Amino acid sequence: MHFASDNTGPVHPKVMAALARANEGYSSAYGSDALTQQVTERVREIFEAPDAVIHLVATGTAANSLLLASHSASWDTIFCSRCSHIHEDECNAPEFFSGGAKLTLVDPEDGKMTPASLRAAIEAEETRDVHGPQRGPVSLTQATEKGTIHSLDEVRALTDVAREFDLTTHMDGARFANALSQIGCSPAEMSWKAGIDLLSFGGTKNGLMGVEAAILFDPAKDREFQLRRKRGAHLFSKHRYLAAQMDAYLTDALWLDMARAANDACQRLADGFRDAPGVNLMYRPEANIIFARLPRATHRRLFDAGAEYHLWDGTLEDGPEEAPIAARFVTDWSARAEDTDRFLSLL
Amino acid sequence: MHFASDNTGPVHPKVMAALARANEGYSSAYGSDALTQQVTERVREIFEAPDAVIHLVATGTAANSLLLASHSASWDTIFCSRCSHIHEDECNAPEFFSGGAKLTLVDPEDGKMTPASLRAAIEAEETRDVHGPQRGPVSLTQATEKGTIHSLDEVRALTDVAREFDLTTHMDGARFANALSQIGCSPAEMSWKAGIDLLSFGGTKNGLMGVEAAILFDPAKDREFQLRRKRGAHLFSKHRYLAAQMDAYLTDALWLDMARAANDACQRLADGFRDAPGVNLMYRPEANIIFARLPRATHRRLFDAGAEYHLWDGTLEDGPEEAPIAARFVTDWSARAEDTDRFLSLL
Amino acid sequence: MHFASDNTGPVHPKVMAALARANEGYSSAYGSDALTQQVTERVREIFEAPDAVIHLVATGTAANSLLLASHSASWDTIFCSRCSHIHEDECNAPEFFSGGAKLTLVDPEDGKMTPASLRAAIEAEETRDVHGPQRGPVSLTQATEKGTIHSLDEVRALTDVAREFDLTTHMDGARFANALSQIGCSPAEMSWKAGIDLLSFGGTKNGLMGVEAAILFDPAKDREFQLRRKRGAHLFSKHRYLAAQMDAYLTDALWLDMARAANDACQRLADGFRDAPGVNLMYRPEANIIFARLPRATHRRLFDAGAEYHLWDGTLEDGPEEAPIAARFVTDWSARAEDTDRFLSLL
Amino acid sequence: MHFASDNTGPVHPKVMAALARANEGYSSAYGSDALTQQVTERVREIFEAPDAVIHLVATGTAANSLLLASHSASWDTIFCSRCSHIHEDECNAPEFFSGGAKLTLVDPEDGKMTPASLRAAIEAEETRDVHGPQRGPVSLTQATEKGTIHSLDEVRALTDVAREFDLTTHMDGARFANALSQIGCSPAEMSWKAGIDLLSFGGTKNGLMGVEAAILFDPAKDREFQLRRKRGAHLFSKHRYLAAQMDAYLTDALWLDMARAANDACQRLADGFRDAPGVNLMYRPEANIIFARLPRATHRRLFDAGAEYHLWDGTLEDGPEEAPIAARFVTDWSARAEDTDRFLSLL
Repeated sequence: MHFASDNTGPVHPKVMAALARANEGYSSAYGSDALTQQVTERVREIFEAPDAVIHLVATGTAANSLLLASHSASWDTIFCSRCSHIHEDECNAPEFFSGGAKLTLVDPEDGKMTPASLRAAIEAEETRDVHGPQRGPVSLTQATEKGTIHSLDEVRALTDVAREFDLTTHMDGARFANALSQIGCSPAEMSWKAGIDLLSFGGTKNGLMGVEAAILFDPAKDREFQLRRKRGAHLFSKHRYLAAQMDAYLTDALWLDMARAANDACQRLADGFRDAPGVNLMYRPEANIIFARLPRATHRRLFDAGAEYHLWDGTLEDGPEEAPIAARFVTDWSARAEDTDRFLSLL
Repeated sequence: MHFASDNTGPVHPKVMAALARANEGYSSAYGSDALTQQVTERVREIFEAPDAVIHLVATGTAANSLLLASHSASWDTIFCSRCSHIHEDECNAPEFFSGGAKLTLVDPEDGKMTPASLRAAIEAEETRDVHGPQRGPVSLTQATEKGTIHSLDEVRALTDVAREFDLTTHMDGARFANALSQIGCSPAEMSWKAGIDLLSFGGTKNGLMGVEAAILFDPAKDREFQLRRKRGAHLFSKHRYLAAQMDAYLTDALWLDMARAANDACQRLADGFRDAPGVNLMYRPEANIIFARLPRATHRRLFDAGAEYHLWDGTLEDGPEEAPIAARFVTDWSARAEDTDRFLSLL
Repeated sequence: MHFASDNTGPVHPKVMAALARANEGYSSAYGSDALTQQVTERVREIFEAPDAVIHLVATGTAANSLLLASHSASWDTIFCSRCSHIHEDECNAPEFFSGGAKLTLVDPEDGKMTPASLRAAIEAEETRDVHGPQRGPVSLTQATEKGTIHSLDEVRALTDVAREFDLTTHMDGARFANALSQIGCSPAEMSWKAGIDLLSFGGTKNGLMGVEAAILFDPAKDREFQLRRKRGAHLFSKHRYLAAQMDAYLTDALWLDMARAANDACQRLADGFRDAPGVNLMYRPEANIIFARLPRATHRRLFDAGAEYHLWDGTLEDGPEEAPIAARFVTDWSARAEDTDRFLSLL
Repeated sequence: MHFASDNTGPVHPKVMAALARANEGYSSAYGSDALTQQVTERVREIFEAPDAVIHLVATGTAANSLLLASHSASWDTIFCSRCSHIHEDECNAPEFFSGGAKLTLVDPEDGKMTPASLRAAIEAEETRDVHGPQRGPVSLTQATEKGTIHSLDEVRALTDVAREFDLTTHMDGARFANALSQIGCSPAEMSWKAGIDLLSFGGTKNGLMGVEAAILFDPAKDREFQLRRKRGAHLFSKHRYLAAQMDAYLTDALWLDMARAANDACQRLADGFRDAPGVNLMYRPEANIIFARLPRATHRRLFDAGAEYHLWDGTLEDGPEEAPIAARFVTDWSARAEDTDRFLSLL
């Protein structure tokens, strides 16, 4: 009954096997190995983007920060949702890597910026010549931190607003796979064809040990990105082990299989929640995350039985007994139906 | 015949096995797992430092930069050898992480700062009130980038100078194991007992996939280090896989066995070089690195036969045929005697 | 009819005279002159703060940024009003000087944070261990950018909230004099006695050429501030000319006389606005700033007659003729009653 | 007998008069005033550079740092003399403004880099792909910190080396006037016609209160410079008072007259030094600075008589009585012959 995070699950055995296979003899360091080249080509094919630049890093925060910094000046402000990972969970990493850019927080609906709220935020900036921050990139998250998914039309509507103001667009795709497998479109359709310039293509939350691909659909900033990666201490010497993971991930669509398994487990859980007395879903669970309010007694029963997940506001001890408490439940590729069912039986 | 770098070799099978063992079920993220705690304790024991703070990162540059930044103000200057990794090979990462500190380069002898040259460099700074840079940490490298090793007395002599000016000391120990196995002392003797405050305890160049332990013998900056690590995008979510590597490294002294194997291979190579006509060693090879000057014809013969190593100044085409060219040869734990012998036979 | 800004008016003749007096012979550079020492003592007396640290800089943004940076880590977030100068008008200077700290924007009422909104903003941060930004200083503006003034109780209520969370407090006092002369209390009562730790004590907007005093009531960070000032290129070599201005400012309460003149001019203007048809004051004008909505025809008439002030939202051409447009009117020490009356007669 | 610094002298009366004249009525803020526009045009004319961008700041460190930062990436290294102001006297300001660029120190002869030493320094960098720092601007100082002057040929020889590697060139002209008046060429000949791209055109050390003009002969980075200036808190609101100083400076060649007076005073002093027993000039005094070694007894006699200047290495108390001590003597526009003569009589 492990629903704490998709960071707590194991690495897929096929990925472990790929690491073992890569562990033969000598290989060029710092990304000049053949496997890295192979992965680059594979990502280009999958994204139908022959000119795209692909660089592997080990953490999602690194992918986000390096991509955003390579397209922001330090006097810019980056537009993002108030509940975005880059704002809430990266300890000012985007500010650090960009040399002090600002983040303008756009109020979300269901975890997503709306075109109207984004436009209002953009229009409110850069109307004061050099005095105010200048308009920088727009960053959206797919799937969102709330477990919701932007439809292709919604992505396009947001990138259209950005384009209107000539702003670069970034997608934090830590859970790109979960969203893609749900929508059922092609990777290109959910990224550059929908107006995305920069993509953090996640792997770590979806069965890898620690690899994300930073994708720049426009290669102009390739060299700058590489210099920033090295300067940020994110260029791995034994780079083949990053490449091996990503290679296995993309082979035979393992990445989509894992995402589907996580999403399915989430749906099974959500269905159970819907039937449970006193449980209220806070957002429509479209990927592998559920936010729900549960009675305190229910939380106690679940924790006593060993369930693992995070309370989201307040504590069991603090507040009136009759007030339900919000919690977050995340599923991963390795979730087992019997675990979920046992969990649901406790509701 | 792979002598390009100790970054090009494979991961030790025991480390791969440890990764596989760690890949069972769920585990807390971001370093709150049991294996990380176990590794922390193990490092403390090995270093006889029960209060030390240990944090794992994936690259040596991250360990160096985060340790130095947590003990430098951005108006400081860090004293280091002109041939140090932090100056030559980190693309301004120490400057980046420290917010713009300076590096004062001390001219080395045999790759090592001398107490006199260090003292002169320190005395030349901070004599101009707020106008000049302020004196910051002293960083030395053990084993050095030139393949030499500071004796314990030499380490102590340098840290004594630093102490006299009340400066923090850092050891870039990317090849700590190579030096330790050569000297034959205890880890404590080569670090805090010799006056070292901060240690980048390397693993990646010595058979790991990508793990270094940042060790703060004084725990005062523990929290700051952790915030800097997160902000630098260097806190791994699936942290158990860093811990598993370091755990295997330290089990049954695997780390020292691997270092000894690399050093032995280096000695075998050095012995061959000494006997070879026209080959001149540039430094005394004490760890796993050799710098030597070879005739151009010899280089050509070696490259034609598939030997891999880096030329260090100039190219084969550029310059008079009779001028020898410097090259660097690095051995790793997996070096095979037959490879070395085949290489030497080509000399 | 000059109401564009208190930055557009002249320097008071007494200040010019003081500059001329200071321009005799030689004087130590970089703040080690006697006049600077004298000003320091004078500020300490006026603020009843014998241990306070006082440093002069030439711009308000420098005072704010250096004070905040000396008390913020780069992983912190600074709490301030959404309409604060440090957020809206300093082109990310606080982020730059702090090395990438964040600003958490608190929604104001009448230009002022409320204790409840401040508390909510603080409570929402630093609940995610190292993942989120950490809680940094609280910065309030007195008088506010909207021309309103915090009562002493209001200042105290905000600093009490900060104190509860152990946070440093900063007051952007670019218009400290305008507020003080209105409240009629002592400088100490409106600053450290009300819980303020750091004060940007403005002079430039109130009749000086370009001087602000950065005041640290707790001297602990004196040296760090000085290093940051020098590193930020804000330490003046010919420092006596900063000191001379501030000295004249504080002599015979010139600073309060000038502020009163500006405030009185503002009241005269406000009274006229209240009587004018179709004019609506947007905030209660308590210092030297008025925000008001005027009919478009009125704006046209005023501009045609040569009045100078800034429209605040929209343009005369853009929007329906019947919609009034907001504008800002600022008075300074040199405002003349006949100008104001002529302006009002045009309404 | 004031030879401590050209920062300790008074402002020229014509400059004070210009400030008084500028202090009439209202004027647009932040550099949009007519006087600033007039000064811009005047600088363009004097430098025969109709497209040049000119921005005024108040300190030399600001001019240097903003110019260099606008033409450096944070992974670059800036090439400069080991005795340059940007390295020795700016408390890491260039590193701060550039976000962590490095300074590569070139050993000077007579305070000047030589083409050979510059070339060697450049060639030693950027040979390690993304691993090492990248080659950034070349910065030279005219006149140098040692009081020497680059001939036009020497400037050209250095900028030729920079051009060969496609590097931007910067001249720290804090004492541009002193050098120009000595050489007797045109401002254009000593700047862009000699290959200089960026010029810190000093005024503060030469009779102004605190103004330097940052000149970008190529306007491409105009906007970036302005954003950096504002973000660095160096955009003055009451900008007319910067403009007024620079305007007076350039009127009727006042700047050259003042520089000549300072240089002449320096020559008078130097001539006296040459005749004095036991006094040795360390560099050829070509501008307004002398470095000389004097017997300790002479220093004591001078200090006792009230002479003001800085010892440069060691103290009177520390060291053998027979060892002379180096000192620096700087003259300014206001130096009086009788003072100098009295000083010399004490030798």
